[in-house]
Amino acid sequence: MTRNFKVKMSYLGTNYHGFQIQDNAVTVQQTVEEVLSSLLCENIKIQGCSRTDTGVHAREFYFNFFTSNTINERGIIFGGNARLPEDIALLSCEQADNDFHARYNCKGKEYEYIVHNSEIKSPFLSDRAYKSWYPIDEKKLDSAAKLFVGEHDFKAFCSTDCDKENTVRTIYSFDVTREGELVKFKVHGNGFLYNMVRILVGTLLFINDGKISEKDMERIFLSKDRTLAGKTVPPHGLYLNRVFY
Amino acid sequence: MTRNFKVKMSYLGTNYHGFQIQDNAVTVQQTVEEVLSSLLCENIKIQGCSRTDTGVHAREFYFNFFTSNTINERGIIFGGNARLPEDIALLSCEQADNDFHARYNCKGKEYEYIVHNSEIKSPFLSDRAYKSWYPIDEKKLDSAAKLFVGEHDFKAFCSTDCDKENTVRTIYSFDVTREGELVKFKVHGNGFLYNMVRILVGTLLFINDGKISEKDMERIFLSKDRTLAGKTVPPHGLYLNRVFY
Repeated sequence: MTRNFKVKMSYLGTNYHGFQIQDNAVTVQQTVEEVLSSLLCENIKIQGCSRTDTGVHAREFYFNFFTSNTINERGIIFGGNARLPEDIALLSCEQADNDFHARYNCKGKEYEYIVHNSEIKSPFLSDRAYKSWYPIDEKKLDSAAKLFVGEHDFKAFCSTDCDKENTVRTIYSFDVTREGELVKFKVHGNGFLYNMVRILVGTLLFINDGKISEKDMERIFLSKDRTLAGKTVPPHGLYLNRVFY
Repeated sequence: MTRNFKVKMSYLGTNYHGFQIQDNAVTVQQTVEEVLSSLLCENIKIQGCSRTDTGVHAREFYFNFFTSNTINERGIIFGGNARLPEDIALLSCEQADNDFHARYNCKGKEYEYIVHNSEIKSPFLSDRAYKSWYPIDEKKLDSAAKLFVGEHDFKAFCSTDCDKENTVRTIYSFDVTREGELVKFKVHGNGFLYNMVRILVGTLLFINDGKISEKDMERIFLSKDRTLAGKTVPPHGLYLNRVFY
C-alpha cells in the first residue's frame, strides 16, 4: 500500500543553493531525497510547498512524498534526522490523503525578513540577518507596509526573471517591528512572486532612506516597471516562517 | 607616545581552537593580532581577559593592547571590523590607564550555558546549544545550583589537567531558567577553573537524571575528586556572557 506523508521541516539555508533540485549544486530537496531514499530503501521524490532562493532559511517548510515502506511517522522523523546534516531538521510528520499536494494545497505563506540595524556587526547574526547601519524608522515603515496590503498586481515588485503570467497576489498583513537592533518585516499573503518579499523589503528601505516616497507607490504599482521599485535585499535575512493549509 | 586600549569584543567560537594563541591551530587571539598588526602597521600583542576552550563563544570578551599608532578609537573598531572575519566583532574601544591589564584587573565573569531540551534538533542551534532530549526540571536544578553559590574549593569540579594550586573560588549567583525549549544556566563568579562551568552544568544534569543526589554534593566538595562530579558538557553550548572590572 502506498501512503502519502506530509512532513514539516526546518532548515538553515546558508549551505544550500535553495530548495529545488538542480543539476550542479547542492540543494535541500536533493539532500532530503537522498536521506529518505536511503532510509526507506526506495527512490523517494519529495514535493515542496515552495521554492526558496540560495541562502534563504525556513523555520517551517512542508513537503509530501509517497512511500510503500511500512515505516511509521516516528521512524521517518528520527531516522531522517539522524541521517540529515545539522542544518536540516524534520519537525513533524503525518499521513495525508493521497490527493494532498504540498504546493497546490497551500493557502498562504508568511515570511519574515530580519535586518540587523547597527553600525557594529554581530558574530551571531552573520548569514542570519541583513546588516544595515543606516537608522531605520520602523514606525514609518510599518505604516508604509500597509500600502502593500490587499489584492494588487505586483508585476513591478518581482524579478524580471519571473515567468508567471498572473502577477496579481493578495497580501493579508505586513508589519514592521523592532526588537533592539533587529528590525523585523513580517508579511503574510496567498502567494509570492519570484524575489517579491526581498523587493518589497528593499522598497520599504528605499522609503526609509528617502529614495522613494509613499506617494510614489500607486504610480509604481500602475507602471508594472521593476526598475521603479527598491533594490532586492540579500537572501540571508529571509525566513519562510509559516505555511498555511 | 604609547597608549593602552581596552577593547570589548564578541565572537562565535565554532571555527576557532579557543582564544589563546597556539602553534598549530587557528585561534581568536592570533586572528585579532594579525588584523590589528596590519591595521596599525606594527607588531601588536593583545592580552585577553580569559582563555576560552575550542568551540566556546563570547558575547563579551575584553582585551587590551599597546600601540604607538595615533589611530583613534573609532578607527580601531571600524578598521578592525572591516578586516576581521564575520565571526569576530570589535564592539567598543576606550583608552585605558597604562597599568590596565585585561586579566589581572578582571573582578568577575558571568557565563551562560544553553541546553536545547528537545527530542528534535534545530538547524538554527547547531554549534550554539547543547542538545539534550531528556526532560529537564529547571526548577529543581535552579534550586540545586544554589549549592554551588558561595566560597568553595572547586577541586572536584575542574579538569584534572587544571594546573592551579589554589582551587578556591567564589560563585556569586547561579540560576537555571527555561525559555521554551532552551534551558539556560547562568553563573557569575570571581573566577573559574579549567572546564569548571562545563562540569558544574554537567553535575546539575546528573542531578536531573538521578545519577547524583543533592545530598551527595557536600561529600563531592570534600572529596576533591573529579570522578565523583558530573560529566563535562560539550563546549558549543557555553558563552562568556559578561566580564566585570
